[in-house]
Amino acid sequence: MEEKRTDVNEFGEFGLIDHLTKSFTIQKESTVKSIGDDAAVINNQNWLTVVSTDSLVEGIHFDMMYTPLKHLGYKAVSVNVSDIYAMNAIPQQILVSLAISNRFSVEALEEFYAGVRAACDHYKIDLVGGDTTSSNKGLFINITAIGRAMPERVTYRSGARPGDILCVSGDLGAAYLGLQILEREKMLFLDNPNVKPELKEHQHLLGKQLKPEARGDIIAYMAEHDIFPTSMIDVSDGLSSEILHLCKESDVGVLLEESKVPIHPETEKTAISFSMDPITCALSGGEDYELLFTVDSGDLDKIRTMPDVYIIGDVTDPSYGAMLKTTGGNFHKLTAQGWKHFEQEEK
Amino acid sequence: MEEKRTDVNEFGEFGLIDHLTKSFTIQKESTVKSIGDDAAVINNQNWLTVVSTDSLVEGIHFDMMYTPLKHLGYKAVSVNVSDIYAMNAIPQQILVSLAISNRFSVEALEEFYAGVRAACDHYKIDLVGGDTTSSNKGLFINITAIGRAMPERVTYRSGARPGDILCVSGDLGAAYLGLQILEREKMLFLDNPNVKPELKEHQHLLGKQLKPEARGDIIAYMAEHDIFPTSMIDVSDGLSSEILHLCKESDVGVLLEESKVPIHPETEKTAISFSMDPITCALSGGEDYELLFTVDSGDLDKIRTMPDVYIIGDVTDPSYGAMLKTTGGNFHKLTAQGWKHFEQEEK
Repeated sequence: MEEKRTDVNEFGEFGLIDHLTKSFTIQKESTVKSIGDDAAVINNQNWLTVVSTDSLVEGIHFDMMYTPLKHLGYKAVSVNVSDIYAMNAIPQQILVSLAISNRFSVEALEEFYAGVRAACDHYKIDLVGGDTTSSNKGLFINITAIGRAMPERVTYRSGARPGDILCVSGDLGAAYLGLQILEREKMLFLDNPNVKPELKEHQHLLGKQLKPEARGDIIAYMAEHDIFPTSMIDVSDGLSSEILHLCKESDVGVLLEESKVPIHPETEKTAISFSMDPITCALSGGEDYELLFTVDSGDLDKIRTMPDVYIIGDVTDPSYGAMLKTTGGNFHKLTAQGWKHFEQEEK
Repeated sequence: MEEKRTDVNEFGEFGLIDHLTKSFTIQKESTVKSIGDDAAVINNQNWLTVVSTDSLVEGIHFDMMYTPLKHLGYKAVSVNVSDIYAMNAIPQQILVSLAISNRFSVEALEEFYAGVRAACDHYKIDLVGGDTTSSNKGLFINITAIGRAMPERVTYRSGARPGDILCVSGDLGAAYLGLQILEREKMLFLDNPNVKPELKEHQHLLGKQLKPEARGDIIAYMAEHDIFPTSMIDVSDGLSSEILHLCKESDVGVLLEESKVPIHPETEKTAISFSMDPITCALSGGEDYELLFTVDSGDLDKIRTMPDVYIIGDVTDPSYGAMLKTTGGNFHKLTAQGWKHFEQEEK
C-alpha cells in the first residue's frame, strides 16, 4: 500500500497551520489567546503579554543580490514589531535566531545586527536573546517579539461588528512594486553587468520594500486620542487577504470601496509601466506592514482627522460577504491571492 | 582595497553572539536579564517571565535519514523547555516556526506536530503561535519557549560561589554515542541497503539522542524540598563547555572529579567499542539536556538523598581555574570541545 502524500499547497498558507494545530488544547490559565491572531496573548494579571514569531528565509522572502544586510536586519524586526502593534500592544523585547552558512562573514553579520540595533533604537525595544547556528545553505532568520498591553486595549481580529468603519494606515501596493523593480534590475544586471540600475525615481517603493516601518505612530495616536479599534490586523499578505481574515474571525462581511484605497502616485505610475492594475497591487501585493482596523461608527470624526489613516469601507452583515465596489460601480467578490509560498525544492 | 572578511569560526559559537550583540543597550525597565543565560528574564511585577529560543537545522542538528519526525517534534520542544528549567522556571507556552521545502508532505508535518503535541502534553504547556513558511532546501525549526518563575527562585549562571557543591542530573555522554550509532548504521545501510540495523541493544543511548526529556522532575523536586541552586545551566554542548560557562559567568573555578561523573554502563561499553574514552564522551559530547547546578554546601544532605542527582565536584576560587582531577589522580585543565558548528556550505 502506498503511503498517503498530501502536498502542503493543498491547504494554503493559513489552512496548513490551522490543520496542524487544531488538536492542541489549552492547558494554562495564563494563555488568553493562542494561535490565530497576529500574536499570542498571555495574562500577567496587571497587563497582558503579547508574543509573536516570524521567519524570513533567503530565496523566499529576500534575495541577497539586492537586499543590503543592514536593511534586512531592520526589516526582520519591523515585520515582527508590526504584529505586536496589530494587537494594539507596545513592543518591549525581541529574540533573534539566525541559521547561516559559512558564506557569511562576521562583517556581514555585523551589518545585519547593525540593522537590528537601528530597529531596536527606533522602536525602543531590547534584544534579549537568540541563537546563531549554521546551515548547509542559505540564511534563515527567525525573530520573536514580545509586547505588553493593558487588558482593555488588546485588539483582536475578532471584534469587528456590522456598522463599523474599515480603515487603513499609509498606502498600499508600494512594497510589492518595489520588489518588482528590484527583480527587473537584477535581470538587467545578470544580462549585462555594466548596466547602471535606475533606482533613484523609485525611492518610496524601494523604501517600503527594503526598510518598512511598523506603524507605532498609529498605535500611539489612538491611545492618545481615546480611539479603540474594534478589530485590527497588519497588512503583510495584501489587503484582500487581511480583510478576509477580519471577516472570518469577526464573522462579518465588508464592503470595500476601490476609489478609497490609498495608492501612492509612484505606485500608480510604476504599476502602469509594468502593465499592472494599481488596485490589484494594493489588494494582492504583500509586505505593506500598514495597519488595517475597524472602529465604531461613533468614532468617525476622530478618524477623519487622524493623520495618514484612510476610511476604505464598511463592515456589513456576514451574509453579505467580502465585496469590492469598483470605481466603475461594479461589485466583485474579494479573493485572497497573497504570495505564493511553498515553492519547488531546488534540485 | 579588499573588503575585510572574518570567518565566523574565528569567534566560536558563543563568542560570535557576544561580539554581535555587545553594542546593544537595555531600554526597558522590564528587561531583567538579556542575552547570556539559558533564557531572558522579563519582570511582570508578580513574577518573572522567562523566554528562550533555539533552532534545529536539517543536516546540522539532525539527519532526516534516521530521525523520525515525531521524535524530532518532541525533541525540538524538549531542547527549549530545558532552557526554561535551567532558569529554575516552569515552562508555560511555546511558539513553533518551521521553514520547509515541498519535499515535506502534510502527513510528514502531521507527524512532526504529533511529537510537538506529545511534548506539550508531557510538559503541560500550550502551543500559542508560530508560522510555517517555505524554504528552497531543508527543514528549519525554531522554537520559542516562555516560562514563569517567582523572582526569588530564578537561577542564573552567575550565582555560584567558592565552596558550593557542583551537581549534575542523569548521566552524560549517552546522546553523543546514540548519534555515533545512528551514523554508523547509516553508513552500513548506504553501503548495503539489505543490512538490518542493530539498534535493540542501544535503547538508552538512542532514547537520549532521539527523544531527550527535559528535567522538570529535578526542578519540581528542588521546589518541594526547598533546595535553592546558586547557579544552573542545561548540558547541551557537553559538560566541559557548560562548566566553563558557569565559571565565567560566576567568576569562580571548579574542581571536577572524573570518578564521580555519571556514565551509564551502556555508554561505557559503546564508547569502548568505538575506541573512545567514555569520560571524553561525557565531557565533550553534546545534547544530554541534563541539569548542571551548584548548591550551597549547607544543602549537602538534601542533595545526597536526591534521586538521579550526582555530586561531581566543588566550586573553587577563580584563580584556581576549571580543573579535572582524573581517576589516576592527575590534574588537567578543562577545555571546551563541544560541537563543531559552522560547517562548509554545500556547493
